[in-house]
Amino acid sequence: MSRLYAEYELETPLDLPHTAAVIAGEQSSGTFLKIEGETEALKVAHGARIESIVETGRSDKPALPCRMKGEIYTRGRIRLSWPMENIGPSLPNTLATVAGNLFELREVSALRLLDITFPDDFAKAYPGPAAGIAGTRKLAGVERGPLIGTIIKPSVGLDPEATAALVKKLSQGGIDFIKDDELQANGPHCPLEARVKAVMRVLNDHAERTGKKPMYAFNITGEIDEMKRGADLVREAGGTCVMVGIHSVGLPGVAALRRHTDLPIHGHRNGWGLYSRSPDIGISFIAWQKFWRIAGVDHLHVNGLRNKFSEDGASSIASAKECLAPLFDGGRDYVAMPVFSSGQSAEQIEDTYAALRSTDLIYCAGGGIMGHPQGIAGGIASLREGWQAAAEGISLDEYAKSHPALAAAIGAFRSRLA
Amino acid sequence: MSRLYAEYELETPLDLPHTAAVIAGEQSSGTFLKIEGETEALKVAHGARIESIVETGRSDKPALPCRMKGEIYTRGRIRLSWPMENIGPSLPNTLATVAGNLFELREVSALRLLDITFPDDFAKAYPGPAAGIAGTRKLAGVERGPLIGTIIKPSVGLDPEATAALVKKLSQGGIDFIKDDELQANGPHCPLEARVKAVMRVLNDHAERTGKKPMYAFNITGEIDEMKRGADLVREAGGTCVMVGIHSVGLPGVAALRRHTDLPIHGHRNGWGLYSRSPDIGISFIAWQKFWRIAGVDHLHVNGLRNKFSEDGASSIASAKECLAPLFDGGRDYVAMPVFSSGQSAEQIEDTYAALRSTDLIYCAGGGIMGHPQGIAGGIASLREGWQAAAEGISLDEYAKSHPALAAAIGAFRSRLA
Repeated sequence: MSRLYAEYELETPLDLPHTAAVIAGEQSSGTFLKIEGETEALKVAHGARIESIVETGRSDKPALPCRMKGEIYTRGRIRLSWPMENIGPSLPNTLATVAGNLFELREVSALRLLDITFPDDFAKAYPGPAAGIAGTRKLAGVERGPLIGTIIKPSVGLDPEATAALVKKLSQGGIDFIKDDELQANGPHCPLEARVKAVMRVLNDHAERTGKKPMYAFNITGEIDEMKRGADLVREAGGTCVMVGIHSVGLPGVAALRRHTDLPIHGHRNGWGLYSRSPDIGISFIAWQKFWRIAGVDHLHVNGLRNKFSEDGASSIASAKECLAPLFDGGRDYVAMPVFSSGQSAEQIEDTYAALRSTDLIYCAGGGIMGHPQGIAGGIASLREGWQAAAEGISLDEYAKSHPALAAAIGAFRSRLA
Repeated sequence: MSRLYAEYELETPLDLPHTAAVIAGEQSSGTFLKIEGETEALKVAHGARIESIVETGRSDKPALPCRMKGEIYTRGRIRLSWPMENIGPSLPNTLATVAGNLFELREVSALRLLDITFPDDFAKAYPGPAAGIAGTRKLAGVERGPLIGTIIKPSVGLDPEATAALVKKLSQGGIDFIKDDELQANGPHCPLEARVKAVMRVLNDHAERTGKKPMYAFNITGEIDEMKRGADLVREAGGTCVMVGIHSVGLPGVAALRRHTDLPIHGHRNGWGLYSRSPDIGISFIAWQKFWRIAGVDHLHVNGLRNKFSEDGASSIASAKECLAPLFDGGRDYVAMPVFSSGQSAEQIEDTYAALRSTDLIYCAGGGIMGHPQGIAGGIASLREGWQAAAEGISLDEYAKSHPALAAAIGAFRSRLA
């Protein structure tokens, strides 16, 4: 019988084996009093199993406020497993199992979900990303190298026509990918329907003239039926991508959208800081991104090197690698394209490629394009040149000698964000 | 024009007014470089506004790891507001606005969303709870006093027939409310359809003989269409309540279910520890419960006094009071019934009533019923007697002198959980 595995880092005022047993009990067949129906046979068949326990440190103070007091607080890693008999291959119910009540236990003074291993049952139950890397490349007309992308800014406040005017400039500048800001949804000032019409008029015109249609990720985050209508609207207008805030719409929201449309789903992870800022409570993106890929997202945000947020570059690279790692055996990889963004410009490209060794990604720059000394076309050119240099194994500085747009980008952005 | 208001506690290595401006910019029209389209007129019309800033403390160390360093870290409360023009009355998009990227900002070393004020536009956009207090009382046949409830235990491992057998005992013992554990969903060992059939056969029989049908909250947490089918299944079988894990199904999941069924939705908040355990990152339940009430939940879990989790009793009481506080003007209160659970027994009742001054609640006990010295009927009787004592203004100990079930509960549970 297949099992689901989850790994945690935790701290406890009790001893690790005892607390591991409390968590395993709380998250399966246990209760705080021994009761009649909890037979040994039932526990063996349905209880969570402790697979391993490793102590990693001790402290004389609890990491988080903890109602249960100890002389020392022991830190460690535990691995638990559950029989698939309990919940079946259901993402929302898996979440309740591996990331439910356990965070509230007074026996822990820290708890983070580090990783999860989904059995193949989930590949049978969920179709996963519809487009993935190959589908995204085909729709965007980018055979190799990253998709060079940007975000409509200001985030909010532009009306449909002003948005479309900016899209026209970006298309003329050679952009591959454009996205709505996550704050731009379907409000009265810039309703989705009017935005789709205005933007797609520009993109369809551009495609007719040049043969290339930049991919635009329309933010359709909303209620379930509203998202389905939004996806249909985008598709009927000739659009090639929709975006949702994953925490806003939830796992069943993404899965319902995936079953409704074959457009790539651009997964924005705003709110992610809530899961990641504390070293003592939360869910690692290594574990978290797996849920969303199975639910069906095709692209996932990972920040990037020297971003404007609190995540360090190593974490962004680890997340991106994980998005590109196969999830199931037998060719069902459910790979999502990592999206680099936040304070990105040409100056981070060399280091990004050196760390990731892949160009299967979307590289988004806002200020790195709009704020380029030579304007939008220069900004986009500088990013494409930077990735060409990386692919050819030439340093940015060397390549910049013969590429003025790249040289201008390095001059403008390197010192600012170092 | 109506506005949305949100209040935060935060800590920053910079000064509070500067960081408040960064957050307001990041969450509305700003970007990290000054760009062409960000006119003053646009900022006035669409930017977030800083309503107030209050410093509350200083520290020489950051509360959370923070890439931006300071000599001192200033703590304070800020209140921001947004024009409804930006996103319209959309819960998922409100979440991205008030609890999105801001948690990741390197300008903050702590950030918690404390409260939110939804304008009346949301009452027009969302129907809110279908049953609320009055509807729940009517369906459960409980005119006054709390609904006395319990959770099926073991949480997982019982098959439909074993579940139904336990439901029979609980019904005979006089229970008002029973719920699936949040870990019991629609797995192969105890599928929802078979469970609904077996349980409702017992409850319908019991209702026919006694005139009272205990309310059973079937956990239908799952994919969108699966939940709709689940709710239909429950309703067609004569059931009166469905349960979902709110974090598992997301805001659009709850809203879609609400628009599909008129059954009360029992909102389980497993995973809540992730939002609440750290004093430095997260969302207060004062703010959080408002989202779910607008989306349509009728019951919301709040733990309780001396619970087995990490939440202290004062927080549980504050949450319960907030669930009972009207959300909009003009009689549209969107009130949800607070659900007390986790280590509850008769012994906490006196203090709970003294703090809450209401009996509009569901009072769930697991061990407090199953582990009662006189068995299930004694456990249920002890809880009802406890609440009668509270309502009559008589102390538990005094009332216990003439009520043996209550006396036995106090003897069994008071020392254990003190």
